[in-house]
Amino acid sequence: MKSTTEYLTFNVSARMGFVNITSDIEHLVTQSGVQEGLLLVNAMHITASVFINDNEPGLHDDYKKWLEQLAPFDASPQRYAHNRTGEDNADAHMKRQIMGREVVVAITKGKLDFGPWEQIFYGEFDGRRPKRVLVKIIGE
Amino acid sequence: MKSTTEYLTFNVSARMGFVNITSDIEHLVTQSGVQEGLLLVNAMHITASVFINDNEPGLHDDYKKWLEQLAPFDASPQRYAHNRTGEDNADAHMKRQIMGREVVVAITKGKLDFGPWEQIFYGEFDGRRPKRVLVKIIGE
Amino acid sequence: MKSTTEYLTFNVSARMGFVNITSDIEHLVTQSGVQEGLLLVNAMHITASVFINDNEPGLHDDYKKWLEQLAPFDASPQRYAHNRTGEDNADAHMKRQIMGREVVVAITKGKLDFGPWEQIFYGEFDGRRPKRVLVKIIGE
Repeated sequence: MKSTTEYLTFNVSARMGFVNITSDIEHLVTQSGVQEGLLLVNAMHITASVFINDNEPGLHDDYKKWLEQLAPFDASPQRYAHNRTGEDNADAHMKRQIMGREVVVAITKGKLDFGPWEQIFYGEFDGRRPKRVLVKIIGE
Repeated sequence: MKSTTEYLTFNVSARMGFVNITSDIEHLVTQSGVQEGLLLVNAMHITASVFINDNEPGLHDDYKKWLEQLAPFDASPQRYAHNRTGEDNADAHMKRQIMGREVVVAITKGKLDFGPWEQIFYGEFDGRRPKRVLVKIIGE
Repeated sequence: MKSTTEYLTFNVSARMGFVNITSDIEHLVTQSGVQEGLLLVNAMHITASVFINDNEPGLHDDYKKWLEQLAPFDASPQRYAHNRTGEDNADAHMKRQIMGREVVVAITKGKLDFGPWEQIFYGEFDGRRPKRVLVKIIGE
């Protein structure tokens, strides 16, 4: 069994934003030499996501608006108990649960085994500081 | 390490629908010969899900109603920016994030290591055309 | 390839509650002897979750309130078709989809490869009875 571990760092300048990391991940899969196996990509921070969806800017705007409706930003200590600790990011912990922490992807014949539109995104919900993403590959 | 890769195709005749794929997956696990390992099952399309829950038709109706409340279908370009591209399925991209892209299941003694009610479903949110599901098995 | 399979049982005395299971999981990873690999932790019941987030009681209260807004408990058969079967837990099946069934975590140098605040929780949405969590470790 081969395994590879890599860490990517992202610093999104807005509170909320999505970064297409597909080519970074493809590069790491090629480098690993794994032909058949599994790839795990996860946010290492709890106010961020890694998810797979469409690389379409209109959809990303829709996601932002929708997530803001489901879990509105509110720095005050009234709405969210978490924000009584001095934090202002309770909403980000909720947005991340909707979008998910991680993706697991099949590697087949040395490549990401993807459908036609699948792309991997880093999803940031409390940005303006560096955060890490873990990439783990196991297989043969 | 053994590995198996299979693709299943589903063509759901409604816009939204759930298909119980547990027996398809059980068959592939048996065929793989893997005794101890991990199974990945994921939608290869970004308006569909694979999820694990109960095989109870009333619950599935509840899911449809609930998802429609959380992310209503609206083909017009007013509500969703994505639908300004000529698409009408922005809502399906959101429903899929709630229900998830994939499941990872343990294989123990050659079988899906499941609790009493766990069943695997393909979840379609923009149907009426064929879509694929990836099944990847690794282990020994 | 090494593999380990363990089952943990939790009996949460309230309908909804979160249990920090990180140290249980760390212990099983150490016991497994796996240095590089993947860990799967999943609820074996369909009204429960395993998720990774912050160990902060205020945030957990926020999650409970938020999930109750997104999918309110209602034992009556009017709101949820599932509750016409004699069940009263349709809401729990929805809360579990938001919070997720499982987490997959990298094992690196014999340890959970975690960011600074990542902790693993069992999430119960229909408690007051024992339920199981599966822990599967594969690697070398």
